[in-house]
Amino acid sequence: MQRSSTQPAANRYSEAKAEILTRFPDQVSDVPVTLGQHANTLSLVVSEPPSVVVWAQTVQDVQAVVEIATRHRIPVIAFGAGTSLEGHVNAPAGGICLDMSRMNTILRVNVDDMDCEVEAGVTRRQLAAHLRDTGLFFPVDPGAEDATLGGMAATRASGTTTVRYGSMRDNVLGLSAVMADGSAITTGSRARKSAAGYDLTRLLVGSEGTLGIITSLTLRLHPVPEATVAAIASFSSLKEACDASIAALTLGPALARVELLDGKAIEAVNTGSKLSLTALPTLFFELHGTAVATAECASQLGDLVREYAALNFEWAADDEVRRRLWIARHDAFWSIREAWPGRTAVVTDVCVPVSKLAECVAAANADSTVNNLIAPIVGHAGDGNFHAIVMVDPNDAGEMDRLAGFLDRLIGNALAVGGTCTGEHGIGQGKIAALEREAGASLAVMRQIKNALDPLSILNPGKVFRPF
Amino acid sequence: MQRSSTQPAANRYSEAKAEILTRFPDQVSDVPVTLGQHANTLSLVVSEPPSVVVWAQTVQDVQAVVEIATRHRIPVIAFGAGTSLEGHVNAPAGGICLDMSRMNTILRVNVDDMDCEVEAGVTRRQLAAHLRDTGLFFPVDPGAEDATLGGMAATRASGTTTVRYGSMRDNVLGLSAVMADGSAITTGSRARKSAAGYDLTRLLVGSEGTLGIITSLTLRLHPVPEATVAAIASFSSLKEACDASIAALTLGPALARVELLDGKAIEAVNTGSKLSLTALPTLFFELHGTAVATAECASQLGDLVREYAALNFEWAADDEVRRRLWIARHDAFWSIREAWPGRTAVVTDVCVPVSKLAECVAAANADSTVNNLIAPIVGHAGDGNFHAIVMVDPNDAGEMDRLAGFLDRLIGNALAVGGTCTGEHGIGQGKIAALEREAGASLAVMRQIKNALDPLSILNPGKVFRPF
Repeated sequence: MQRSSTQPAANRYSEAKAEILTRFPDQVSDVPVTLGQHANTLSLVVSEPPSVVVWAQTVQDVQAVVEIATRHRIPVIAFGAGTSLEGHVNAPAGGICLDMSRMNTILRVNVDDMDCEVEAGVTRRQLAAHLRDTGLFFPVDPGAEDATLGGMAATRASGTTTVRYGSMRDNVLGLSAVMADGSAITTGSRARKSAAGYDLTRLLVGSEGTLGIITSLTLRLHPVPEATVAAIASFSSLKEACDASIAALTLGPALARVELLDGKAIEAVNTGSKLSLTALPTLFFELHGTAVATAECASQLGDLVREYAALNFEWAADDEVRRRLWIARHDAFWSIREAWPGRTAVVTDVCVPVSKLAECVAAANADSTVNNLIAPIVGHAGDGNFHAIVMVDPNDAGEMDRLAGFLDRLIGNALAVGGTCTGEHGIGQGKIAALEREAGASLAVMRQIKNALDPLSILNPGKVFRPF
Repeated sequence: MQRSSTQPAANRYSEAKAEILTRFPDQVSDVPVTLGQHANTLSLVVSEPPSVVVWAQTVQDVQAVVEIATRHRIPVIAFGAGTSLEGHVNAPAGGICLDMSRMNTILRVNVDDMDCEVEAGVTRRQLAAHLRDTGLFFPVDPGAEDATLGGMAATRASGTTTVRYGSMRDNVLGLSAVMADGSAITTGSRARKSAAGYDLTRLLVGSEGTLGIITSLTLRLHPVPEATVAAIASFSSLKEACDASIAALTLGPALARVELLDGKAIEAVNTGSKLSLTALPTLFFELHGTAVATAECASQLGDLVREYAALNFEWAADDEVRRRLWIARHDAFWSIREAWPGRTAVVTDVCVPVSKLAECVAAANADSTVNNLIAPIVGHAGDGNFHAIVMVDPNDAGEMDRLAGFLDRLIGNALAVGGTCTGEHGIGQGKIAALEREAGASLAVMRQIKNALDPLSILNPGKVFRPF
């Protein structure tokens, strides 16, 4: 099959769309509001709706859509819940949005093996409810309850529990995907490890729909801990908070969450979640384990944070208090948005070696102050991953310029200390230039793989790489 | 550059060799005994020596060798310590063996970040000695102390501690490699996680030198546990032992090793390591953590193995006893070889969902009995990964036929229950057909990647895939 550039684009799109409408009469929409809902929403990245939305119900549907797209040379953009932040689901050149949300069957839970198999459209919330009585849970927690597991895999999501349980990279044992040539493949196995050939699972996890469309996943599950204990400590400086979080990493595997909020973020959380925390750099901890192990770790943690001059250190042994604290942490993003009404949130993330966290967070803080930007910081301190949530007025050109400089320096600082331009949000459209800076010569290898597996650039073009 | 098939192979090889000898006068050998030492040794796979061996000392050396090999269209086989088991370092079509053992500088240890950077030729033993006073250790333990970390990454090695600390897949944060086009790339970063583009680190880990030549690694380190406790339990059947090991997995992160030896393996270990263990299916446990956490886990483990009808359960609280036990476990392979002098060991491995371990181990056991094969079993029960060490007489054609049937059924059984044809030994030459069976349609994707990144098939040809 050769690339046909003679046919006008408009014809190709209208013919593909007509074919889609005929083939999937009950699974399709081209109503503008629906198209708009399938473009990027949660960030400043400008929405670029697709030409048509198809709800896949089977692997064969996915294959059929890919086949039609290939024949007409138009893009296919896989869509989960649309909660990504870097424009991953935008359709810069139009094309077919393949909504996976109806492929939402939980196919199997193997309690003895602590794994499960789910279709790509199953959400975190749905899986959590399903597992409720099994004694097992799926730990990866990027914050969005309605995120689909397929979308989380495609963007290599992580979140608050990564320090203990790892990210999607670590918790996807295998997957099924439809490739650009229409083949349906299965990678990995149900074994916990394998040395059999190339690690296609890890290649597809984080590939953002540009190499294949994930249709199902085999996920690793973990035992619900016997005890869960939360603690909170505030510090007079970001440096002390970060240093305490590094030291805490040596306390061992009871440490399941180590989250950092700066003073501005705490103020917002106090208002949004009706709390009265001291508006200073604060660490939220969560410990998982047996009652004995968590109690021991809690006591060690108390000693440790006092060594790092914590101003206070409080336990939330009570389940209700613990839940409120963590809901507050989870809702920090929303609280921050509400704290500056009329402004728009630009949420960015970088990840650095933990020893460099204090310096990078402090630099971001100083930078936002100097440049008169509102930029509370919320971080997964245990992983060296932090978010600046910059509240901007998109109509203020000067402020948008200052934002651009701030983001550029944030990434530059992270790369300078051996970090990465994104710990968990991915590249999408928003960080293509940052990836070029970071990847250097390895970008060519990524391109070679993309060209080999998707020579016509049908799958989510304009993401990860600049458009051809 | 186009493939030149007009020049006779003999000329291409002799010209390349002459160029290598001129370019690296002090780093090269074509003495037959040296060539032989660089071919496969530890298995039945027939040794196929390279045409010449070059000891790389710098990344530039590696690039120069790849450039010469490319120009003359001859293979380059990266060599670490030669401890792999499936013919990974053989040179079926001759070519240049690139010995990485002189690139053995430990470049940096970052205690706060719990990571280090090493050249590919650094051995496990060397790194362990270097880390002795840091409070940190590198956990991946495939058994061979002299294995190089580059070789371990290239084969996605794992071993006894995977249940707690993961394999090379999980403990390589990033790496540098020379690709077939001569480019030197760096993948990953020092950040603990990243969502920046394709996961080239995981693609190269386990690629067995067929996609690129690993020159250095950034490795994750772990805190040396405050307490290490060993325990041993024997059972009247493999099923009870396996069931106990599955149940033990819910005990949480103190569980650092769960190893299974069958009765035959115990007999050999008793002789080889001067022990007097009961010659029955036996689990070896090791617990890592604080004194409190390991003591609690030990007590729970005692209750648990008694529930699964353990015939005895003994602690090795004493460091010396613990060390002897684990040395015995590590030396099991050598003890088994010595127990049947005059025979040759064929060591194979498969990995299955843990719930299927009992059934697969029992099937292998019954199969070897029916077919009159000596095949002790040693397994990483916590991962569902087990080895049959078949002691054969290579000159007995009938026995070799029965061996072939046994291996075929072992793999068939593993695949039938959702497992993999190799948990940790890799594909090399020995399991190419097994990978074809396991990978199905995904094999074509692996091939596409190989063709894209190494279009002339210079890098370790005849491994992972059938020769072109």
